[in-house]
Amino acid sequence: MTYFERLAARSKAAGTLVCVGLDPDFRRHPAEEVAAYNRAIIEATAPFAACYKPNMAFYEQYGVPGLRALEETLAAIPRAIPVIADAKRGDLGNTAEAYARAIFETWGFDAVTVNPYMGRDSVEPWLAYQGKGVYVVCRTSNPGATDFQYSRVESGIRLFESVALTVTGWSPDIGLVIGATAPEELRRIRQLVPAASLLVPGVGAQGGRPEEVVAAAGNEPGTLVVNASRSIMYASEGPDFARAAGEAARALRDQLAGAAAPA
Amino acid sequence: MTYFERLAARSKAAGTLVCVGLDPDFRRHPAEEVAAYNRAIIEATAPFAACYKPNMAFYEQYGVPGLRALEETLAAIPRAIPVIADAKRGDLGNTAEAYARAIFETWGFDAVTVNPYMGRDSVEPWLAYQGKGVYVVCRTSNPGATDFQYSRVESGIRLFESVALTVTGWSPDIGLVIGATAPEELRRIRQLVPAASLLVPGVGAQGGRPEEVVAAAGNEPGTLVVNASRSIMYASEGPDFARAAGEAARALRDQLAGAAAPA
Repeated sequence: MTYFERLAARSKAAGTLVCVGLDPDFRRHPAEEVAAYNRAIIEATAPFAACYKPNMAFYEQYGVPGLRALEETLAAIPRAIPVIADAKRGDLGNTAEAYARAIFETWGFDAVTVNPYMGRDSVEPWLAYQGKGVYVVCRTSNPGATDFQYSRVESGIRLFESVALTVTGWSPDIGLVIGATAPEELRRIRQLVPAASLLVPGVGAQGGRPEEVVAAAGNEPGTLVVNASRSIMYASEGPDFARAAGEAARALRDQLAGAAAPA
Repeated sequence: MTYFERLAARSKAAGTLVCVGLDPDFRRHPAEEVAAYNRAIIEATAPFAACYKPNMAFYEQYGVPGLRALEETLAAIPRAIPVIADAKRGDLGNTAEAYARAIFETWGFDAVTVNPYMGRDSVEPWLAYQGKGVYVVCRTSNPGATDFQYSRVESGIRLFESVALTVTGWSPDIGLVIGATAPEELRRIRQLVPAASLLVPGVGAQGGRPEEVVAAAGNEPGTLVVNASRSIMYASEGPDFARAAGEAARALRDQLAGAAAPA
């Protein structure tokens, strides 16, 4: 079974397109609190989660104790729910092999986010793992996205469009990361690569609107997950944080389920 | 003092342009051997090192024990020698801040390599640290470098040339990573950004020639370091590995020192 088939099965079974981002805030928690906080978030959000997505940066910022907390976090996620390492790695040759070994073997993630800048052979070591998924960063949700991603390349299309067309041709195990804050680009990508699996961050704290994402990208299980991190993990600052996280995840699931897909 | 000033001072004082890559090979060492091996390499190569460059992937592949070995490795490097985290990170907003905290505060590196794809605001959190250096990946030494880096953008220049011109305008604390295996591109970059500090991997195991690098990029201290990893760390497979590493680093120093810079 491929990663995207597993994602589709989970998404369908639980009736959800929600990716729950697990990004502990350095200002809120010392390292030793992270694992217990995450466990409570996972327990409360699991019924509404198509997948989980810890971003490596938020564990690495604590050093070794943060990576211990990541180990405990991963151990708490139910097996039926795929887990994406948001790592944005990009390197080549034996270095790319070492990163792939770290993420897929040592940590045991089901999928990863990677950067396209170094081209095909920088992505291939990730594809050597059967049953794993690779999301290539395509169009990000920040102002600087226009610095290079918007460059018009030879064929008159923009760089992020060239990335979408090119990388999805490398393997069926490749999906794309597209920020939610630019629905018109999301629509354009969906037209260019109708079957590609999209990971869409940027709703919630970053301001993207769930119904616009579905209207642009469709809602076929396995071809779309929509990530929210802070707006779920920190839905409440009080002792009811886990209950509030569960409600925020449920609300996002319902918003996505109620939105109209393109005809 | 800026990072590039410190690098220039070290490079001048020790008469060397060599960056020693510390990339432990998973097939050769279990995690518990890495720190001791690295300490021996550092002791033998320090007289010839302008800087050290551990690539994070080679520590992450071992999981938490690998990151403990990285801690011990960093502790063994003499203070006078700057240390670059080869991390190729690229992310945005609070995630980029978390990565910068990890690399510059938690680990205490002096400089980092980052990916340009997400644009200016993805690089800015790194620049908020006084005295630290940021090398932006520009032209890599692998076949896939041509997939996107060679795209002709609006102004008729190629993407990697646009990256070189654009990012060096963001801050004087920004340098560039340019692979040694494409000396013609290195020459072109040097013409475009004459004062930029270049980190050039790809000599040794990857086949780039040191004298071609100097002929293309010049040899002004602080504006060029040339990295070799495997060809130094594994110069010998026997018990004389440290002595052999020292000799390989000395030989590379001498090759670089003896090469003719452009007129």
